[in-house]
Amino acid sequence: MKAGPSQEEIRRHNLGTLLRHVHIGGSLSRTALAERMGLNRSTILGLVSELASVGLVREGLPRETGRAGRPSLVVRTESDRAYVLAFDVGVDRLAVARIGLGGVFLDRREIPVPPGGHDAGKVAEALAASALEMVGTAPKGTSCVGVAAAVRGMVRRPDGLVRTAPYSGWEDEEFGEDLVRRLDLGLPVSVENEASLGALAEHLRGVATGCQDLVYLHGDIGIGGGIVTGGRLLGGDQGYGGEIGHMVVNPYEGRPCGCGARGCLEAEAGERALLEAAQRDPAATGRDAVRAVVEAADRGDVAARAALHDVGDWLGIGVANLVNVFNPRTVVFGGTLREVFLGSAAQIRSRINRHALAASRENLRLRVGELGDDAVLIGAAELAFSEMLVGPLETLARAGA
Amino acid sequence: MKAGPSQEEIRRHNLGTLLRHVHIGGSLSRTALAERMGLNRSTILGLVSELASVGLVREGLPRETGRAGRPSLVVRTESDRAYVLAFDVGVDRLAVARIGLGGVFLDRREIPVPPGGHDAGKVAEALAASALEMVGTAPKGTSCVGVAAAVRGMVRRPDGLVRTAPYSGWEDEEFGEDLVRRLDLGLPVSVENEASLGALAEHLRGVATGCQDLVYLHGDIGIGGGIVTGGRLLGGDQGYGGEIGHMVVNPYEGRPCGCGARGCLEAEAGERALLEAAQRDPAATGRDAVRAVVEAADRGDVAARAALHDVGDWLGIGVANLVNVFNPRTVVFGGTLREVFLGSAAQIRSRINRHALAASRENLRLRVGELGDDAVLIGAAELAFSEMLVGPLETLARAGA
Repeated sequence: MKAGPSQEEIRRHNLGTLLRHVHIGGSLSRTALAERMGLNRSTILGLVSELASVGLVREGLPRETGRAGRPSLVVRTESDRAYVLAFDVGVDRLAVARIGLGGVFLDRREIPVPPGGHDAGKVAEALAASALEMVGTAPKGTSCVGVAAAVRGMVRRPDGLVRTAPYSGWEDEEFGEDLVRRLDLGLPVSVENEASLGALAEHLRGVATGCQDLVYLHGDIGIGGGIVTGGRLLGGDQGYGGEIGHMVVNPYEGRPCGCGARGCLEAEAGERALLEAAQRDPAATGRDAVRAVVEAADRGDVAARAALHDVGDWLGIGVANLVNVFNPRTVVFGGTLREVFLGSAAQIRSRINRHALAASRENLRLRVGELGDDAVLIGAAELAFSEMLVGPLETLARAGA
Repeated sequence: MKAGPSQEEIRRHNLGTLLRHVHIGGSLSRTALAERMGLNRSTILGLVSELASVGLVREGLPRETGRAGRPSLVVRTESDRAYVLAFDVGVDRLAVARIGLGGVFLDRREIPVPPGGHDAGKVAEALAASALEMVGTAPKGTSCVGVAAAVRGMVRRPDGLVRTAPYSGWEDEEFGEDLVRRLDLGLPVSVENEASLGALAEHLRGVATGCQDLVYLHGDIGIGGGIVTGGRLLGGDQGYGGEIGHMVVNPYEGRPCGCGARGCLEAEAGERALLEAAQRDPAATGRDAVRAVVEAADRGDVAARAALHDVGDWLGIGVANLVNVFNPRTVVFGGTLREVFLGSAAQIRSRINRHALAASRENLRLRVGELGDDAVLIGAAELAFSEMLVGPLETLARAGA
């Protein structure tokens, strides 16, 4: 428990907070900023001027006002002045984006996983090469202020070591450090689990904006989870929290799981369980294969309907457990679970009603993610921007701009 | 997101933080306080003087120094100057305590649940009468600065409404408001779930001191949970978070649960499951009956050993799920689960090793609560003190002292 901040720390905090408001909230008038921050208008004016003098925000006319008369000016971010690099290491594709203040995608590329994708070094090499091309073509006077990468695995919080990323075959990879060396931008690289970043994105910019307590389920080959409780991303002691795919829901009769246990939620309700139950070609996997099952069920395919029913049962049980444990306001289904939810919502709801306590579920909203496949990149960008939003001037100065 | 604090807010924050340090940490030298709070010694001197002038702390010689030479003075709380009232509404007994700064029990009584204990009004009446006797006998010049009550049920965070307390037969009881009226001390009454308060107590003063991520399981008739993540008590959207007793672990074959579902952790591993499996007299319930099963198992009683084995299996599965979801540093077994853990630790550990991910459990510690039956009262007292530790002078002034 520390003492209160100094005057200088307060000034830094206020600059960061103002920038965060316009970064997340878009265009805001100085009056609105004064209200949200609890400061008087002259203090706000000073803060806006300071951020504008280094090119992070500018004032201008609102895009549309809908009212007659002279509109008041609004403050907005200069989306190109400071940007971050966001990486998403998927199972079968890599994505790289250059994202500006305000969450604007300035550049975006997908590249195939390089041959020998189990070699984390080759993945880092491909990502770094693509990112450096983006940095090279960025306009003059713009600065990269942060880098973050999403992986399908368990990431140790203090140092970003990827302890295990089973679908990439990684164990104890210093992936972030490797990216730091290859990029050579003088910036640290934050590494985080993809579902946690999906949760962060939907919390800040998606379907759960303004919601302080949410559970995000991310379907991919496996089932990942990202949890926001009291407005903060749950990490746990070492950063491994949120592994909801390995909650045991069927301990004795359950299907074997990749983790070595039996009856995990991921084993019962993951992609493989769905595709097997729907009697699909074992070679077909991924989002398209899952979508095909949902479409077949819509057309009346008996095996597909039964598969969605079973998977919905297990998902409902898993979500009910999470509702009892977290009392979230919103549960968000992302990745391939978006499609699965749309195909088995009735079953999921029925299980939640049976297994979740009445008080815990009475205000519950079930939603599909609204950021789609970009959720993870958007979350990575927010993680990469976090230092900037704490100390804008210091971060910009360190970026050599 | 608010702007940084004013000078006055900083002063208040620093007074509260200093008081919290000595309230939780015991006697501390001014040098130690300066270090922990990141303030210089003259600022600390000013804060100590201000708190001492209203009688909340005093400086004196340490109780023992173990070093030669003149010992430095230490700051400690005046345990009797400001106190709180803590209530614990158990299933078969009520407890009331008057607890001073520093967590010192100044007075403590147990009273039986009044006839017709399903009437929340009668319970509040008995608690208030006992508490007012304590207030009446408190020394002159002392002030009651907060009141909190623990209940075995689900409590709505914003207003303290007891939505349901199944073992007391309560539904939608304005229990806190009722206590406010009956006590008539001009103070609000905070109401909270008993397992959340047990978690808070073990986190602040017990076996998990200094641990920021812990899961506390409280055994009573049912199984309650209190979760601290990132140093904060998990509440969820409405305050109902932590209902780990209703995680489904055995959805198809499971025993019926009091909540109406089947295969909840509480149904499989709670007191009733243990006593039935151990073939005990159905009339014997409670802590003594549970302890008798553990003792019988120690002596080689076959049914008792089998019962502990089964219950340990389910508890281990439940804990493994919580380890995957929360990645806690410490799992604490409190209430009757203290005894159950001591009798089935091997089984619990074996299940955790099978079902929890290796990274999530590698630093995990399993512990029994060290505050015993008082954990809940201690947690209630901390909740009642929380306003005092944010603004000591304002709280004292409001208490009319």
